[in-house]
Amino acid sequence: MTKILVIGAGRSTSSLISYLLNNAASNNWFVTVADMDVNLAKTKTNGFSNCEATSFNVTDENLRSGLIQKNDVVVSMLPAFMHGDVARDCVKFGKHLFTASYVSDEMKQLDAEAKSKGVLLMNEIGLDPGIDHASAMKIIDELHAKGATITSFKSFCGGLVAPEFNNNPWGYKFSWNPRNVVLAGQSTAQYIENGKLKFIPYNRLFTQTEIIDMGKHGKFEAYANRDSISYKEPYKLNQVKTLLRGTLRMPGYCEAWNVFVKLGLTDDTYKINNADKLTWADLLDSFLPKGTGDLKARMKDFMGVNYNASIEEKLDYLEVFGNKKINLKEASPAQILQALLEEKWKLAPGDKDMIVMQHIFEFELNGKASIITSSLMVKGDDEEHTAMAKTVGLPLAITLKNFLSKKFSLTGVQIPISKEIYLPLLQELNSLGITFEEKEI
Amino acid sequence: MTKILVIGAGRSTSSLISYLLNNAASNNWFVTVADMDVNLAKTKTNGFSNCEATSFNVTDENLRSGLIQKNDVVVSMLPAFMHGDVARDCVKFGKHLFTASYVSDEMKQLDAEAKSKGVLLMNEIGLDPGIDHASAMKIIDELHAKGATITSFKSFCGGLVAPEFNNNPWGYKFSWNPRNVVLAGQSTAQYIENGKLKFIPYNRLFTQTEIIDMGKHGKFEAYANRDSISYKEPYKLNQVKTLLRGTLRMPGYCEAWNVFVKLGLTDDTYKINNADKLTWADLLDSFLPKGTGDLKARMKDFMGVNYNASIEEKLDYLEVFGNKKINLKEASPAQILQALLEEKWKLAPGDKDMIVMQHIFEFELNGKASIITSSLMVKGDDEEHTAMAKTVGLPLAITLKNFLSKKFSLTGVQIPISKEIYLPLLQELNSLGITFEEKEI
Repeated sequence: MTKILVIGAGRSTSSLISYLLNNAASNNWFVTVADMDVNLAKTKTNGFSNCEATSFNVTDENLRSGLIQKNDVVVSMLPAFMHGDVARDCVKFGKHLFTASYVSDEMKQLDAEAKSKGVLLMNEIGLDPGIDHASAMKIIDELHAKGATITSFKSFCGGLVAPEFNNNPWGYKFSWNPRNVVLAGQSTAQYIENGKLKFIPYNRLFTQTEIIDMGKHGKFEAYANRDSISYKEPYKLNQVKTLLRGTLRMPGYCEAWNVFVKLGLTDDTYKINNADKLTWADLLDSFLPKGTGDLKARMKDFMGVNYNASIEEKLDYLEVFGNKKINLKEASPAQILQALLEEKWKLAPGDKDMIVMQHIFEFELNGKASIITSSLMVKGDDEEHTAMAKTVGLPLAITLKNFLSKKFSLTGVQIPISKEIYLPLLQELNSLGITFEEKEI
Repeated sequence: MTKILVIGAGRSTSSLISYLLNNAASNNWFVTVADMDVNLAKTKTNGFSNCEATSFNVTDENLRSGLIQKNDVVVSMLPAFMHGDVARDCVKFGKHLFTASYVSDEMKQLDAEAKSKGVLLMNEIGLDPGIDHASAMKIIDELHAKGATITSFKSFCGGLVAPEFNNNPWGYKFSWNPRNVVLAGQSTAQYIENGKLKFIPYNRLFTQTEIIDMGKHGKFEAYANRDSISYKEPYKLNQVKTLLRGTLRMPGYCEAWNVFVKLGLTDDTYKINNADKLTWADLLDSFLPKGTGDLKARMKDFMGVNYNASIEEKLDYLEVFGNKKINLKEASPAQILQALLEEKWKLAPGDKDMIVMQHIFEFELNGKASIITSSLMVKGDDEEHTAMAKTVGLPLAITLKNFLSKKFSLTGVQIPISKEIYLPLLQELNSLGITFEEKEI
């Protein structure tokens, strides 16, 4: 019997855990679901065989290493910054690890030791990163096999609310960790455009956007996502002149979000004491420069050419100009903003979320320039069984199954870019309704 | 014999080390000067008795703890982020520590243990922080003794080039660690104004400035400095409505520096690979958004209302629009900018630097509102014996001497705000020509 430990049973783990539990008996797996909140873990394991729920605390070294030692494979669905201790234990005790998070410097440092011990540290095997790698590499490898030269690769992804369930001017509701949404983009975006390095620092990330037209799925607004350049080598895109990964939002979201960035309300590096004595109007007053008129007039002067009625409508929806109380005693501006948004951007019962992804390849083949687009749209079932939970959890679960059934064998720090991983993954995702539509122009 | 260890012999340690060595024999001290570069340490000890020079590496634990164990008092002139290991060793081995740096969270955590072991961890005993605390607390304590209510306290300080030695449009040359100048302000400024909390994030710190008129010393431009609010309690300013600490530059500096902030050229969080293949024009091209016209036209469009001929003159002086090569292979934008500025903002032989500081107190006494200003201006002797080295090093050296001669006795984490520290310090500084001028209006 293969013993699988899943750490974390929160938002976006439901599809992952269901898949593993549904496949446990037939594959001779025993699945342990561990969470800080053992009752949350139990709700996921209830009614299934070959599994148990247990409590977990990543900072409790004995508990952590004890659980990891008792299992064969570990899935960490913890927030990314907590993977380090889990990964070090996995390498120490010779256990394989799967995460949906970006490869951190901490993770990279474990590569040599993991390889020497025959341990796999599989990362970026969720949606974005994850499905994007798999689906892009399929087309890249196909084009290269035909002898094509890929000159441009752009890839975009967004987790949004389905338009028919949208009822707020932002066109956005949370389908994953709200903290990540508030802190998104707080490192300089790096990409390549027409053969030149391009950098966009956080202070203007949300002002330099482009519109992505996904036809029947709608038009979206994209901002640049982290470091695209680092994918040039793993994606084998050595001749590419343009390389950009971006995040999608509904048009108009970014210019309004830029207000929070410019004010400083996404800052998570310090705490405001006695914030519970403030209203949102007080808070804006503290962040806006001196000026004349009421808060709305000062906001307008402050933002200048970067302000309009549509932005004001979005801010009004959040009630930031009013006497709404702040219910946190000691919190960073980002935490205060997050608390407000969790109230305003919550998926209501019955709401469906939506995932959209599009890759755009420009290439030359036999002297002819062409474009291929590859697009994905997935909707959730309801506010619990979200498209986000499916598209983050299933790639991980499927790839874990494929690894255990020896469809591929790799060691060290890996991301899903090799054929032996992405082909069976995309095939099974397709059978589950997660299907890319490819078009050549 | 009291054994004093000075770690770090770089810029701004010359006055500190001279003072300690000149006073060593008469006070029965033995002074060890330790630096990565033992030859640099030797240039400081040459010709003096009661001292030696030795090599040092803060990351070499045996070397570090061995040296600290052999001494009675440690002075750390290392960059602030390196104080942690030194401070932990000091507490472990029961040795007193002096630094000119801000109290870090790491330092705070050592307070209880230091107190229990009778160890003093004296911080912020340089210029700013340092002389500012001492000179402000003298007036605050005097006003409180008279029964005054202090309603506003603003304090400004800048390390600049003396105007008669200025020959560049920025009005600035480096008199201390260039890295700190490039990274200055990269946390949200926090202060109090008319009873309200005020926050200015980095993205607009250099656009919200005020002019400080220091009369015969000239007019300066101030930007808000770090967290002023945290000084409310230690300064005993419980009734204050306005509390602001700021940094001074020559007028026009901040609006031009804002170009680098907005571009992203002060970012130190990632490296640009093969930067040595780029010119400065290439680098600007990578950071400027797409646009029409040449680099200067794109810069003008990019900065919009925040641009003018005076800013362009400053950028031209730095040759950033031209084909000047970048001589660093793998470096952060901040490191690339720093290398350029170290060339352009270097004190030439014979150049004198200048320190300016001003405190402005508003208070009510017997129903009457008044203002006191307290101002300091110090010029350096030449490009080596700078006003910065004097005003950073002498307060530390004098306070160390006063501690060893038992003029005060404190333990735990301290800053120079108590009478027993600041009175003898200000008196001796005065005798050395570092004299505040107080005016009541």
